[in-house]
Amino acid sequence: MRTIDWNDSKNNILMIDQTLLPGEYKVIECNTIDALCEAIKTLRVRGAPALGAAGGFGVALSAFRSNASTLDSLLRDVKSASNTIISTRPTAINLSWGVKRTLKAIDDANNIKEVRSFALDEAKTIADEDVKKNMQLGEHGAALLEDGDTVMTHCNAGRLACVDWGTALGVIRSARAQGKDIKVISCETRPLNQGSRLTTWELMEDKIPVTLITDSMSGHVMRKGMVDSVIVGADRITQDVVFNKIGTYTHSIIAKEHDVPFYVAAPVSTFDFERFEDEIEIELRKPDELKYFGKHQIAPSGVNVYNPAFDATPMEYVTAIITENGVFNPPFLLDEVKIKR
Amino acid sequence: MRTIDWNDSKNNILMIDQTLLPGEYKVIECNTIDALCEAIKTLRVRGAPALGAAGGFGVALSAFRSNASTLDSLLRDVKSASNTIISTRPTAINLSWGVKRTLKAIDDANNIKEVRSFALDEAKTIADEDVKKNMQLGEHGAALLEDGDTVMTHCNAGRLACVDWGTALGVIRSARAQGKDIKVISCETRPLNQGSRLTTWELMEDKIPVTLITDSMSGHVMRKGMVDSVIVGADRITQDVVFNKIGTYTHSIIAKEHDVPFYVAAPVSTFDFERFEDEIEIELRKPDELKYFGKHQIAPSGVNVYNPAFDATPMEYVTAIITENGVFNPPFLLDEVKIKR
Repeated sequence: MRTIDWNDSKNNILMIDQTLLPGEYKVIECNTIDALCEAIKTLRVRGAPALGAAGGFGVALSAFRSNASTLDSLLRDVKSASNTIISTRPTAINLSWGVKRTLKAIDDANNIKEVRSFALDEAKTIADEDVKKNMQLGEHGAALLEDGDTVMTHCNAGRLACVDWGTALGVIRSARAQGKDIKVISCETRPLNQGSRLTTWELMEDKIPVTLITDSMSGHVMRKGMVDSVIVGADRITQDVVFNKIGTYTHSIIAKEHDVPFYVAAPVSTFDFERFEDEIEIELRKPDELKYFGKHQIAPSGVNVYNPAFDATPMEYVTAIITENGVFNPPFLLDEVKIKR
Repeated sequence: MRTIDWNDSKNNILMIDQTLLPGEYKVIECNTIDALCEAIKTLRVRGAPALGAAGGFGVALSAFRSNASTLDSLLRDVKSASNTIISTRPTAINLSWGVKRTLKAIDDANNIKEVRSFALDEAKTIADEDVKKNMQLGEHGAALLEDGDTVMTHCNAGRLACVDWGTALGVIRSARAQGKDIKVISCETRPLNQGSRLTTWELMEDKIPVTLITDSMSGHVMRKGMVDSVIVGADRITQDVVFNKIGTYTHSIIAKEHDVPFYVAAPVSTFDFERFEDEIEIELRKPDELKYFGKHQIAPSGVNVYNPAFDATPMEYVTAIITENGVFNPPFLLDEVKIKR
C-alpha cells in the first residue's frame, strides 16, 4: 500500500492514517474535500511529496463529487475546491504544485466526463512520477554515502512523506540497496514526533538499523563523532533558503560546527524558483501541540506558546541538494536545477 | 514551602513532588533512605543545588532512621546510606558535595545524639546557604541583563531546582526585582519536559512573562532576533566543560552562531576543580523516556534509544559563568572562582 492512492472501485482517496502510527496501521478513505482537508490539516497525510499527490487526487475528487450538470459549473466547483485544498497548509509548495498541475491538465476538457478522467489521469501520473523521481533521487544521493556511515535525519522524509520510497530515507534505502551498511539516527522531531512515530517505524519495517534521540541531542552526538552526515527533506526551496520542519535550521548549524555534511533531499517540484524567504508564510500551529501528548498534559493550560511548523535554513549551511536531476553543490544556481525540470 | 526541607515534627524530609507538576502541586514526605533515593532517581526532586540539600538532609535522615546502639555502628550505617545516595545520580556534583559536607560535620560527634544534631544542623545550613547564595548569584547576574531583554533558558534552573530563588531563573528574578522588564523563552527540554512542566509553571506563579518553545526552535528564534541572551544552570563544571541537561551544548553553539551571550549560572558548589570532562560519567537514562508520555506511546516498542541525561559544553562556547562570588569571564581560571569558596 502506497502512502496515498486512488481507490478505483469507489472513486475516493485512500491513505495511511499517520496520526495513528506507530500504535496502529490503518488505511482510511477520504470521500469528500472536507475529509481530505481535515486529513491534511491534522497530518493524517503529510510530507511535501505526498502532499503533491494529495493535491492532484484532491482536484480529481472534487470533479467526481461535484453535482454540477454543466461544464462551467463543474469547473467552478473544482476551482473552489482547489483553493480550499491549497489553503490548508501554506508553507509546503508541493500541495499547490500538485493542485495546479492537475488543474492545468483539465484545461482542454470538453465535457464533465473528460474533466474527471483528465484530472484523475494527471493525479495518478503525479503519484507514479513521485515514486520514480524518488528512486532516481535516491540513486544520486547514495553516491554521497560510504559503507558504514551513520546518517542523522529529522522529521520524516521517508516513504510516508512521499507516495513511496522517500527522499532523505530514499537515499538511505538506495545506498543500502547498493550493499552499503548505513545506520540511521532519527531525531524525534517535536512537537508532533514524526521522527519517533514515523521514521523509526518505517525504518524498522525495512529492518534498517535506527536509533532514536531527542532533537536537542544533535550537538552531543555530533561532538561524539557518531554522525557522518545529515540528510533532511524540504517543504519549499526558495532562491535563498530551505524551508523544512522546525528544527532543521538548528541541526544545520550544529552540522557546520562539526564539519558534518548537511544534505537536503527533495524533488524538483519542491523548488520555488520565483520567490525568496520573506515572501513565504511560515505556518503557526496550535499551542496544544506543546501542551498535551494525547490526553497527557505537559505544560500549564494558560502558558503562552510559540509553535511555527517550519524554519528556514540559509543556503550557506547546505552542503548539497539532492534531486532526481542530480546532486547540486553551492553556489546553488537554481536555474541549473530548473533546466531539467 | 521550599523545594526541599526538613520536617522537624517527624524528622523526615519534605519535598514538592516535581513529577506531578504542572497538573498537581503536592508535598511528599521521605521517611527512609529508600524513599529518598527513589525520589532522586525519578526526579521528584532534581536540580543540582536542590540535590545538594537532598544529600545533606539524606545524611541526617540516615542518622535518625538507624537503629544502631553504638556510635561506630551508627557511623557505618550513615556511611553506607551516604554511598547509596551518591550513586543515585552520578553526574550532578552537588549531590555528593552535600553528602560529603554533612559527613564531615559529624566527624567530631562523640555520641549518637551529636551525630544526629550535627548532621541536621549542617544540612539545614546547606539549605539556608543555598537560598542566600542564589540571591547573591542573582544580583551579580542581573547586571548582565538590560531592561526589555528576553532570556532563553533550558531545563529548569529555577527555585524548583534549588532550595529557593533559583540560579538561571534567580538571575531573572533579581533583574525583575531591580525593575527591569525581563521576558523568558523556555525550551521544553526533552525528554522529561522540565522546561514545559516546571520552568513555565514557576514563572507563571511569579507572573513573569514566559513563552514555551520546543528545544529545536532555538535556532529559529535566535535567527529572528527574539533572544537577547541565554542563561542555563549547570550540574557540574570541570576545568574544561560545563555539564548540564542534554541540549545545553546544542543551544550554546546556536547562541555563538548568532552572537547571543551564553551564560551559565551556578553556585561554587557546582565546580569540580580537580577533574576534566573525560573523568566524568554521563548518566544514561531509560529508553522509555523517549517512548512514552505518561501512558501515551510515541515510538515503536522495540526501537533502539540513546538517552544521555547530560551533555558537555566546552568553555569556548560560554560567555560568562555567574556565581555567588561574582561573574567570571574567559579564560575561566577556576582557581579564581575557588579563592572565595
